[in-house]
Amino acid sequence: MDALVIHAPGDLRVEDIPTPAVGAGELRVRVRTGGICGSDLHYYQHGGVGTIRIQQPMVLGHEVAGVIEALGAGVTGWSIGERVAVNPSRPCGVCRFCQRGLQNHCLDMRYYGSAMRMPHVQGTFRQEMVIQAGQAHRLADGVSDAEGAMAEPLAVALHAVNRAGALLGRKVLVTGCGPIGAMVVIAARRVGAIRIVATDVMAQPLRKVATLGADETIDVAGQPNALARYGAEKGQFDVLFECSGNQHALRAAFDVVRPRGVVVQVGLSGSEFTLPFNTVVAKEFDLRGAFRFHEEFGVAVTLINQALVNLKPLVSATLPFRDAGRAFALAADRSQSMKVLLSFD
Amino acid sequence: MDALVIHAPGDLRVEDIPTPAVGAGELRVRVRTGGICGSDLHYYQHGGVGTIRIQQPMVLGHEVAGVIEALGAGVTGWSIGERVAVNPSRPCGVCRFCQRGLQNHCLDMRYYGSAMRMPHVQGTFRQEMVIQAGQAHRLADGVSDAEGAMAEPLAVALHAVNRAGALLGRKVLVTGCGPIGAMVVIAARRVGAIRIVATDVMAQPLRKVATLGADETIDVAGQPNALARYGAEKGQFDVLFECSGNQHALRAAFDVVRPRGVVVQVGLSGSEFTLPFNTVVAKEFDLRGAFRFHEEFGVAVTLINQALVNLKPLVSATLPFRDAGRAFALAADRSQSMKVLLSFD
Amino acid sequence: MDALVIHAPGDLRVEDIPTPAVGAGELRVRVRTGGICGSDLHYYQHGGVGTIRIQQPMVLGHEVAGVIEALGAGVTGWSIGERVAVNPSRPCGVCRFCQRGLQNHCLDMRYYGSAMRMPHVQGTFRQEMVIQAGQAHRLADGVSDAEGAMAEPLAVALHAVNRAGALLGRKVLVTGCGPIGAMVVIAARRVGAIRIVATDVMAQPLRKVATLGADETIDVAGQPNALARYGAEKGQFDVLFECSGNQHALRAAFDVVRPRGVVVQVGLSGSEFTLPFNTVVAKEFDLRGAFRFHEEFGVAVTLINQALVNLKPLVSATLPFRDAGRAFALAADRSQSMKVLLSFD
Amino acid sequence: MDALVIHAPGDLRVEDIPTPAVGAGELRVRVRTGGICGSDLHYYQHGGVGTIRIQQPMVLGHEVAGVIEALGAGVTGWSIGERVAVNPSRPCGVCRFCQRGLQNHCLDMRYYGSAMRMPHVQGTFRQEMVIQAGQAHRLADGVSDAEGAMAEPLAVALHAVNRAGALLGRKVLVTGCGPIGAMVVIAARRVGAIRIVATDVMAQPLRKVATLGADETIDVAGQPNALARYGAEKGQFDVLFECSGNQHALRAAFDVVRPRGVVVQVGLSGSEFTLPFNTVVAKEFDLRGAFRFHEEFGVAVTLINQALVNLKPLVSATLPFRDAGRAFALAADRSQSMKVLLSFD
Repeated sequence: MDALVIHAPGDLRVEDIPTPAVGAGELRVRVRTGGICGSDLHYYQHGGVGTIRIQQPMVLGHEVAGVIEALGAGVTGWSIGERVAVNPSRPCGVCRFCQRGLQNHCLDMRYYGSAMRMPHVQGTFRQEMVIQAGQAHRLADGVSDAEGAMAEPLAVALHAVNRAGALLGRKVLVTGCGPIGAMVVIAARRVGAIRIVATDVMAQPLRKVATLGADETIDVAGQPNALARYGAEKGQFDVLFECSGNQHALRAAFDVVRPRGVVVQVGLSGSEFTLPFNTVVAKEFDLRGAFRFHEEFGVAVTLINQALVNLKPLVSATLPFRDAGRAFALAADRSQSMKVLLSFD
Repeated sequence: MDALVIHAPGDLRVEDIPTPAVGAGELRVRVRTGGICGSDLHYYQHGGVGTIRIQQPMVLGHEVAGVIEALGAGVTGWSIGERVAVNPSRPCGVCRFCQRGLQNHCLDMRYYGSAMRMPHVQGTFRQEMVIQAGQAHRLADGVSDAEGAMAEPLAVALHAVNRAGALLGRKVLVTGCGPIGAMVVIAARRVGAIRIVATDVMAQPLRKVATLGADETIDVAGQPNALARYGAEKGQFDVLFECSGNQHALRAAFDVVRPRGVVVQVGLSGSEFTLPFNTVVAKEFDLRGAFRFHEEFGVAVTLINQALVNLKPLVSATLPFRDAGRAFALAADRSQSMKVLLSFD
Repeated sequence: MDALVIHAPGDLRVEDIPTPAVGAGELRVRVRTGGICGSDLHYYQHGGVGTIRIQQPMVLGHEVAGVIEALGAGVTGWSIGERVAVNPSRPCGVCRFCQRGLQNHCLDMRYYGSAMRMPHVQGTFRQEMVIQAGQAHRLADGVSDAEGAMAEPLAVALHAVNRAGALLGRKVLVTGCGPIGAMVVIAARRVGAIRIVATDVMAQPLRKVATLGADETIDVAGQPNALARYGAEKGQFDVLFECSGNQHALRAAFDVVRPRGVVVQVGLSGSEFTLPFNTVVAKEFDLRGAFRFHEEFGVAVTLINQALVNLKPLVSATLPFRDAGRAFALAADRSQSMKVLLSFD
Repeated sequence: MDALVIHAPGDLRVEDIPTPAVGAGELRVRVRTGGICGSDLHYYQHGGVGTIRIQQPMVLGHEVAGVIEALGAGVTGWSIGERVAVNPSRPCGVCRFCQRGLQNHCLDMRYYGSAMRMPHVQGTFRQEMVIQAGQAHRLADGVSDAEGAMAEPLAVALHAVNRAGALLGRKVLVTGCGPIGAMVVIAARRVGAIRIVATDVMAQPLRKVATLGADETIDVAGQPNALARYGAEKGQFDVLFECSGNQHALRAAFDVVRPRGVVVQVGLSGSEFTLPFNTVVAKEFDLRGAFRFHEEFGVAVTLINQALVNLKPLVSATLPFRDAGRAFALAADRSQSMKVLLSFD
């Protein structure tokens, strides 16, 4: 079968790789749709982010939906032909973090399409893959493969929302409206936030999130002072989701989040942040990192299956995986696209 | 009566100021002992810290114990001659933060000896003061005035500990062993931490905290790599109390605090912090500011009264308030002193 | 003006009472719609519930919407003719509970239409009332008076949901589908529960909640064993909202709520509960009472104003207040009605 | 080797049982000291408690300290002759509760000396036992075997304290002063409670806990109204630990625990509880069960090793295990004994 293999920045090749055998407890899945994530883009454009760098050829991808085409020995509850979203997270289950319910911090994590360890963990931009049966989550009739492939970024957004605690009645600021920020807007609305303000430096993603649940959008490039009115009485927002990975977004938000407000940092950055940390002290922020997810993957699929969220408007385009160069270029252009999908049919 | 009034950096004068009348619900207190806090030192040395600057003459001081010498109309439950610690925090009680139990974020706070508002709130380095009866907390027989004056910094340390949540069974790192850091060590031991490691860049405060409950002390100037062994398995500390206000201490701790660890930032700094914020994301720290206190003042006095903590070893010297220049110089010399007190008798 | 005054069980009279003067900071409101609450019914049918008994004539009612008809001195931000929901909760603001953000436990609470204190606090089933300006919450255009009057029971439901913590991805059981239980179903759906099962002993309220967000309804009178399948693996529900005040509902739920599950007791009962408390120990339930609300009133009005919840299907009938006997009889008949409203025009 | 085997109520025999082989990753421990727990007493006196009944012969015991006498293949970090406390809790590690950090709710728990499952899990009142290496916790020099054997009940008490959240500055009521209640007193003092009131119906245990950290003791049999003064302002206690398993203790406490107070139910009972549940609603208690422990076992051993708690005063007597009848009779007599130990030398 064919797969999309990154060799170096800009060097992404369609290569023939062997189809693995299906072992006991496993499923073989014919991949149908995969989403291009920001981390895929970083590997493609820069060879990685921060200290995480490609050191050997690696199949990209970790957002994926497909069809079961073979069952390993002892697998029950599944049938050939069923459509599934695949959870790309494979914690070890036995380390001290797994035994505390913190599987996203597993000491021996094998996350698809990640260069964090050597050898790298190969990804899902391929025509066929073999998974543990527990990684498969059934898609309901009427749910598209595209939606199934977006369960993974939705899980990231849900995890960020879970890190913030209950949002019922809360006023929420979301900085950065890429796919994760947009899904945080959707999720914050889903869980009862009563005011959602979203910011970005570009108009296109702001127009999109205005249709997804944001009550107000602010172009901080064009309206640099528009946030200021939320600074009254030490800050009007209860919760910030910082999804841009840009220190300027975080700094600006320090003025408009209230004392004891919650700041969830979701976005990763290519550089360090310089911040007025006395504000963290004096306003006693609860500043929490959010990284990947665990149980939220299943929740994401359920929300999609039950139509409790609608991710379809996020899809900008679906291109054949053999046209990956064009797809990655489109995904990198925030003025045109939110989420770009690859078709593996 | 006389008071210690700061006019400009280095310009601290003994001046005669009027004794206020005792109104209904108030007590007049003859001040006996006052502690020199880091913020008093900053006013004295630099005229303030960050954007908080002396703009008019101000009586310094907010750590204070004394004796009741007059009762206002309607005051019950108090007698002349009783010894008290005085809570310097006076929130308004009615703003949106006070009504949520977040009095330390009061929109109209009047904290003694603070230049945060104009006109400044005059402090407690004075021979007599008038307070609301509710600010007084009775000192038990056998508790010294010095201990009473240290209820305020202990309350700051207790608040920091409360911000961290339950510490029973936790492994704790304390960076910076000034008076607040030292009291955090005492408090962390009091609430059941099972390992307490303290760091500083000087030997003297480390020797002191080694006698106050720290299981291990590390001179990070002399042993820059000594912390590294705590970096195993993504970090061994459950909780960090950053009490130095030094970004290098916080950066170094990022490597040794475990994923989902709690980082309580207590120390204020004269400059911004530059930090590898991707670590906050990837390790999902809970980073919480800790600022002043509210209900912890009463708890501090009770712990002192019941001998559940012992603050006496923290006192480096007690000098007459008329000798303030020498006292402030001594307080500023970390190689010699932990807490320096002024006597107002 | 006229008001509905309860004198004894079954003795509810329309009486002329004086219109109070509008003081500084107050608003006079012409009442338009009031909802009949379970507690109103208890006063009417039994003279009260438990130890809370009518000891003097009392105007009933605490769910109310109306129109501003006069402004007291110093009131800003309001105009005559504006439509408002009125918060019936009036905590003192200064007691130890108010100062902790626990205003619903105020030591000097004055809640409309309650016989908890002597003299009783008169209620809102009247043509005109005078309130503190802070009790008024503006209703958006297009929101009916009926919806405004239901902000109070919605606030009760939201408070119960807040007591449970974040519900995103949780499986929820609601026992008892009166107006509060029905609104808990609505609220649980609003905040991201992924499965909501509702039980009752009657078919009519179950049919109603099936249209409001419940994924499954169980008539525990007709299908006494239908819940049992949720007992697998020590229990499948993460959270129970017990809204019936019936000990049998709570006992049955003990088998289907998972270890460390959250049990929110909302319903009050006329008698004590006998329970297998060893189950609370062995399954380590978090069993939490939920009583009234505080900040949730404003949240309720905002959710209604923004159409984030839809309460209109709950209204069974609206009758003139002069026809109170028929209205109360209808409200008491669960086979016919969910929420019965009184019109005061 | 010999073991103490219960066959029926009152029928406890010394019997010869085979010594198991030491497998890979295992340790063989020569048992030196075992503590008699309330559950051992229930098996001995009544054949069990509630629905948990002896259905086949079972070795009693689960509080145990001993000496390593053999190492299985692959065991590192241990030497023959080392003294250890043995954690009797053996969760499966893979079920949905283990993977959430809730190992005490494991779906396949094997807890020593428990009749909860068939076949029963044999206990530790025996001369030799084989354990997983991870169950062993090293005892420090100077720590007695008796203290080591009490790590288990201390872990139960620590778990109860953890269930309550941070106790710094809290006012705590402990009802029931058997060994668990007494250790809760010790633990509550260890974590910074500022007032601890303990109640019981007998004088002897109250005299004991008065020496262990309780600020006040109340004999509720002799002074039935002595608690009443804590009912002021809706209740003065922040936290209750109900360790008696007696509904009267819990009922009485409802009047003296403040609104939003935490009630931790630790004690198991032979019968159901009848309670005024409207109080749970109106005061919004957080009522939490506490059952066994998980990570607290290691914390217990560390606290003992570091002399951060002192359990030695709890030991009433140590008898040879061959004299079990007399030992169990003594353990059952609360007027004479707190904790009775068996010697297996």
